[in-house]
Amino acid sequence: MSRFQQRRSRLRQALKSQGVSALLITNFTNVAYLTGFTGGDSYLLLHSGGEMLLSDTRYELQIAEECPGLEAQIRATSASLLEMAAKNIAKVGGNKCLGVESSTMTLKHHDSLAGFLPQWTIRGVEDAVESLRVIKDKYEIESIRKAIKAAIKGFGMIRSGLKPEQTEIEIRNDLEYAMRRFGAEDKSFNSIIAVGPRAALPHAVPTAKRVEESELLLIDWGAKCEGYASDLTRTLVTTSKPSQKFRKIYEAVLTAQKRAIDTIKPGEIMENVDRVARKSLEEAGLGKLFTHGLGHGLGLEVHDGKRFCPGSQTVLQPGMVMTVEPGVYIGGWGGIRIEDDVLVTKDGCEVLSSTLGKEFDEMMVD
Amino acid sequence: MSRFQQRRSRLRQALKSQGVSALLITNFTNVAYLTGFTGGDSYLLLHSGGEMLLSDTRYELQIAEECPGLEAQIRATSASLLEMAAKNIAKVGGNKCLGVESSTMTLKHHDSLAGFLPQWTIRGVEDAVESLRVIKDKYEIESIRKAIKAAIKGFGMIRSGLKPEQTEIEIRNDLEYAMRRFGAEDKSFNSIIAVGPRAALPHAVPTAKRVEESELLLIDWGAKCEGYASDLTRTLVTTSKPSQKFRKIYEAVLTAQKRAIDTIKPGEIMENVDRVARKSLEEAGLGKLFTHGLGHGLGLEVHDGKRFCPGSQTVLQPGMVMTVEPGVYIGGWGGIRIEDDVLVTKDGCEVLSSTLGKEFDEMMVD
Repeated sequence: MSRFQQRRSRLRQALKSQGVSALLITNFTNVAYLTGFTGGDSYLLLHSGGEMLLSDTRYELQIAEECPGLEAQIRATSASLLEMAAKNIAKVGGNKCLGVESSTMTLKHHDSLAGFLPQWTIRGVEDAVESLRVIKDKYEIESIRKAIKAAIKGFGMIRSGLKPEQTEIEIRNDLEYAMRRFGAEDKSFNSIIAVGPRAALPHAVPTAKRVEESELLLIDWGAKCEGYASDLTRTLVTTSKPSQKFRKIYEAVLTAQKRAIDTIKPGEIMENVDRVARKSLEEAGLGKLFTHGLGHGLGLEVHDGKRFCPGSQTVLQPGMVMTVEPGVYIGGWGGIRIEDDVLVTKDGCEVLSSTLGKEFDEMMVD
Repeated sequence: MSRFQQRRSRLRQALKSQGVSALLITNFTNVAYLTGFTGGDSYLLLHSGGEMLLSDTRYELQIAEECPGLEAQIRATSASLLEMAAKNIAKVGGNKCLGVESSTMTLKHHDSLAGFLPQWTIRGVEDAVESLRVIKDKYEIESIRKAIKAAIKGFGMIRSGLKPEQTEIEIRNDLEYAMRRFGAEDKSFNSIIAVGPRAALPHAVPTAKRVEESELLLIDWGAKCEGYASDLTRTLVTTSKPSQKFRKIYEAVLTAQKRAIDTIKPGEIMENVDRVARKSLEEAGLGKLFTHGLGHGLGLEVHDGKRFCPGSQTVLQPGMVMTVEPGVYIGGWGGIRIEDDVLVTKDGCEVLSSTLGKEFDEMMVD
């Protein structure tokens, strides 16, 4: 049984637990996870009697290549995917209750489906596939490792070539190109390249600001390999004489990050990991400047699964991959964030990005 | 009044026509269109008494920079955006009917909103903002022109450097990097770089296949500038002695494309434009091999607005920007597609990508 068949077989249990006779998967990322199909615009229909990929002529050959053995139905140019799905659903027996993905199914599609299937009840099912995706199998962890390696190698190249007159935009362009040299299909999200005060915006968009305009350069970037994302942040020291303020805040953020990582193990509750970093920054008098959650799951999406944040009661389990990324932001001056990707193991955790240095002195470019 | 205020003022009429006392815009692209805010994860609330951007601390400074004069409310880390939206909606007077965007509002968010607002009726509103976005203003057309120019310049560079041993992946990497040299923020979609038989897959993903393995190379690519997309396709002749079959099919596709473009003018119905290309290919005996619609609108999204396809009754109006991209696909051999971006003008149309040659002899690389 292929890993995709295994995943579909696990999902099949949701049919029973949710009391539905068919499940229509319309989130393309979930379709990819369950079938191996890397195109878009396609649905997966799962029911007690079978399973079927619904797509269009653009993808006919690709599906045959990527999903051997999976039944596929290709729609006519004139019909909608939803209409074709409905025709197949109408043939399914059972209690005539259809499960749809409530986190992505839109009101419009819901209403269309209801129109096509007047005798069916449509029930929103939450996170049926996402809950499987939270725990990564060995293939997924291997892909994430590749995505981390491509990101680290690409970063190494642009770091080696960094010049005072380079702009944020130029660095972004070079970094995203360099990651592809090392096997990345793409960036996993829009890189944040932020000089000095721009780093106070946690989601800054690159501008024409030059490296030499500040003592710090924050880079938050990631690669995508085999569909999987990495997500890392380093704050570089771009002067040979950094201020005491910079060093002090940097050390506080790094200490908070290390302390949080040290608590990651199966059974730990997510909000506790967040709290360790938050308390650590509070002790340093910087708690109020840490304005976001500590991290998030990583997988086919860069924000994948649960988050380290106040109130999160999710329990850590082996196979989860999480970012750990505390930050301190001071308007007008800058921001410091340090981010690694961490795999929860049987008895603790493994920092998957451990080859990438993060001590203050290692961040000195000059 | 800024262009963003103008757009919001036009949208305000939807409040009346839809009979709702407030409208919650949750589609981030629509939020960007209406406010100029280029970040994500933010909603716009519009009601008879005012308007308000709802966001979080990550974007506080960016909103102040990008949206001067627009009221913004920043949520606490513990509250959800939807919850904050609901609190503000609850204060609005009127008929207690809230409009939400049915094409993007999910079942889950709809149910949450309904829970937060038990005294309100929630009504799905279709394409309230999308229908405004269909007609581009001068700023938007200027941005699309920039996106086309960056795409053409980037393509020129990789075309000049094309070598027989290059792979699809290498060409993709170089092309997307080159577009940024000419001002692109990013690609507007994942480039299709397809050698010979791979071009028979209209949405082929680049592989390690080399240019020299076939006589043709299809490139479908686009740039993003100021948020706006371009989308072009050329099929290059990568041998000095192309087959008669290749030349013949190429000429048929080009003729179909030119005939379709010649019909584009205000008042024309979209399905008619599609039909002209389809008939032209049928006359050449290739009709069944043209397996997709003729084109689509272009704007903040690469598929933006209405489509040229059988059955589309939409009437062309000045200010629409459309792709025109007939194609012929033969499994095992290859595919030929030629795509330009066309602006509907007052009395006809303008091919915005007209500087990019498309005659067969101009496509010869050797």
